Amino acid sequence: MNNAKTDQTFMKMALDLAATAKGNTNPNPVVGALIVKDGVIVGSGIHRKAGEPHAEVHAFRMAGDHAKGATLYVTLEPCSHYGKTPPCAELVRSSGVARVVVAMQDPNPQVAGRGINMLREAGIEVEVGVCEEEAKLLNERFIHNMLHKTPFVISKVAMTLDGKIAAQGGHSQWITGEEARLSVHHLRNEVDAILVGIGTVLADNPSLTTRLPEGGKNPIRVIVDSHLRTPIDAKVTDCTAAPTIIIAAEGANADKAAALEAKGVEIIYTEASDSGVDLAAAMSKLYDKGITDVLVEGGSEIHGAFLRAGLIHKFMIYIAPKILGGRHSLTPFAGQDVNRMDQALDVEIHSIQTFGQDICITAYPKR
Amino acid sequence: MNNAKTDQTFMKMALDLAATAKGNTNPNPVVGALIVKDGVIVGSGIHRKAGEPHAEVHAFRMAGDHAKGATLYVTLEPCSHYGKTPPCAELVRSSGVARVVVAMQDPNPQVAGRGINMLREAGIEVEVGVCEEEAKLLNERFIHNMLHKTPFVISKVAMTLDGKIAAQGGHSQWITGEEARLSVHHLRNEVDAILVGIGTVLADNPSLTTRLPEGGKNPIRVIVDSHLRTPIDAKVTDCTAAPTIIIAAEGANADKAAALEAKGVEIIYTEASDSGVDLAAAMSKLYDKGITDVLVEGGSEIHGAFLRAGLIHKFMIYIAPKILGGRHSLTPFAGQDVNRMDQALDVEIHSIQTFGQDICITAYPKR
Repeated sequence: MNNAKTDQTFMKMALDLAATAKGNTNPNPVVGALIVKDGVIVGSGIHRKAGEPHAEVHAFRMAGDHAKGATLYVTLEPCSHYGKTPPCAELVRSSGVARVVVAMQDPNPQVAGRGINMLREAGIEVEVGVCEEEAKLLNERFIHNMLHKTPFVISKVAMTLDGKIAAQGGHSQWITGEEARLSVHHLRNEVDAILVGIGTVLADNPSLTTRLPEGGKNPIRVIVDSHLRTPIDAKVTDCTAAPTIIIAAEGANADKAAALEAKGVEIIYTEASDSGVDLAAAMSKLYDKGITDVLVEGGSEIHGAFLRAGLIHKFMIYIAPKILGGRHSLTPFAGQDVNRMDQALDVEIHSIQTFGQDICITAYPKR
Repeated sequence: MNNAKTDQTFMKMALDLAATAKGNTNPNPVVGALIVKDGVIVGSGIHRKAGEPHAEVHAFRMAGDHAKGATLYVTLEPCSHYGKTPPCAELVRSSGVARVVVAMQDPNPQVAGRGINMLREAGIEVEVGVCEEEAKLLNERFIHNMLHKTPFVISKVAMTLDGKIAAQGGHSQWITGEEARLSVHHLRNEVDAILVGIGTVLADNPSLTTRLPEGGKNPIRVIVDSHLRTPIDAKVTDCTAAPTIIIAAEGANADKAAALEAKGVEIIYTEASDSGVDLAAAMSKLYDKGITDVLVEGGSEIHGAFLRAGLIHKFMIYIAPKILGGRHSLTPFAGQDVNRMDQALDVEIHSIQTFGQDICITAYPKR
């Protein structure tokens, strides 16, 4: 407790380091580590990519002998199991550090406190929970994966201040300004997959790629298209830019399926349902393919279907300072109707950010 | 400039004093005044109500001889004309104050700088523009009235985070929580009139009164009802709580009109239009009756009609942290459709306030 302020300062630095790898480490968490001796950073490390060394490994390599008697700050509990790399808890134990400060316990059931216990049993002082909220937020995708074994689903919407995403007839470009749209490309760069409904493909023929000045990776494109209506020459069927997966209902036209598959598109089938496909089953199948998070970008019907299925874990609502009005304008969440206001999904507003003239409200379903 | 910090401090106090009278001074502005000598407040005053003394009068009465050589802080230029009270500029001139600090020039064409000139001609040092933004905001209703001779129209909406004001079938109670709803009653307490469309009367049979723990005044109820469909026993036809005005289209049923008038309801006629009545003409007629501001509370169609007519001067969008969805849910602004996103009205977001779990975005049409 006497080091509370310093601990927080260094942990925030470690979290900032970790955050730089967001989107690159899937299915692993992002992790940052700092080794501090007499108030000086003698080692630092980031887990950059699955299969590469953990953050602690880099930090200890840098620190060398300076680690003896030092304090390790690490944003996630050091692992205790043999994965693609040996357990970090062993490395920490043999490093000679006197004290370890951990932001949060590893939600991975294979770890879940075992790493911390190994250190304590070795006589190392361990403090857990410094900047825990920030650490949990940074790895919200990983925590969800570990607990639910399904992709973390983010619903992203761009709407006017009066809750419209398009004018009558569908015209929608653009609602938000450049800065907000750029931030969406950063989001795309961080997720494994981006998902839209067939309505959006037919209306806008989007490429669904990441367009950032500094480059960036394209997420897998996922199209919910129960009857395989995706045009054979739609931009998303060009799989040279990124892989494309179509989620179709069992019994969809086999010839069309063959034609799409010939272009490199992968088709996943689920039972047919009211909203076209069984979205929960589809999400499980995507997770089995290694997709840890999905950015749902629309349109109204697909957002509504995800909402009604209870499959959204995070809402990012971009709001442009304009009032559109109109009886037949489109709204961000359509889907099946309900009859009472108390059937709405309660959410918790986490933050309100500004992007140029637009704002973005981030919210989570209330637990 | 050497007194800049002190000037701001005292002007903010004068603005806070003025704000306490908001809603009570119509058609007049709210004004606060402080007289400060050697850093000590020797006089303070508020304009409490039209017909009662101006803020300066109260402040000078309190200050008495202490005014000599002192500084007067006043949130609005002292008046130069004979209204219900003699010109304050005369009073200031004869008071012996050495310096006058004014937040903003009076937009009233009968004043418009004349008061300031009178003081300067008398050799008094006058500084104009201290806390001008805040002063203009505080008297936005009055400024609009002076420049446009129409009521200042506030469009107030309570919606879910996905832009819905009611589920299919119209169920909407409640969207926002208690604190947000209380703030709306404070708004009602401040305006001359509250306006809804006939749809809201038929769906909800609201009383449209101000319900505050500490009491408060009821605004005049205005119903836009082109064909006089208001039920004779609707709550708004009981004029003991507050006066009710119905805006109808010329040619509406005369028998129904007579029956409503027998209950004390006043009916104003305009030419018929696409949206039922000519809202711009109706607003002018309300202004001629002394109504300086109107709070439009819904529903979708009336908000949409005001939007399309370009008659909204301020938007107050309450957003509840819930996602409703639904193809047939109602949205805050309906009205005539447009075909392109760039036909939306651009607004400027002025503030985002929190009321319990809800937020309120205040925005103004972009100039």
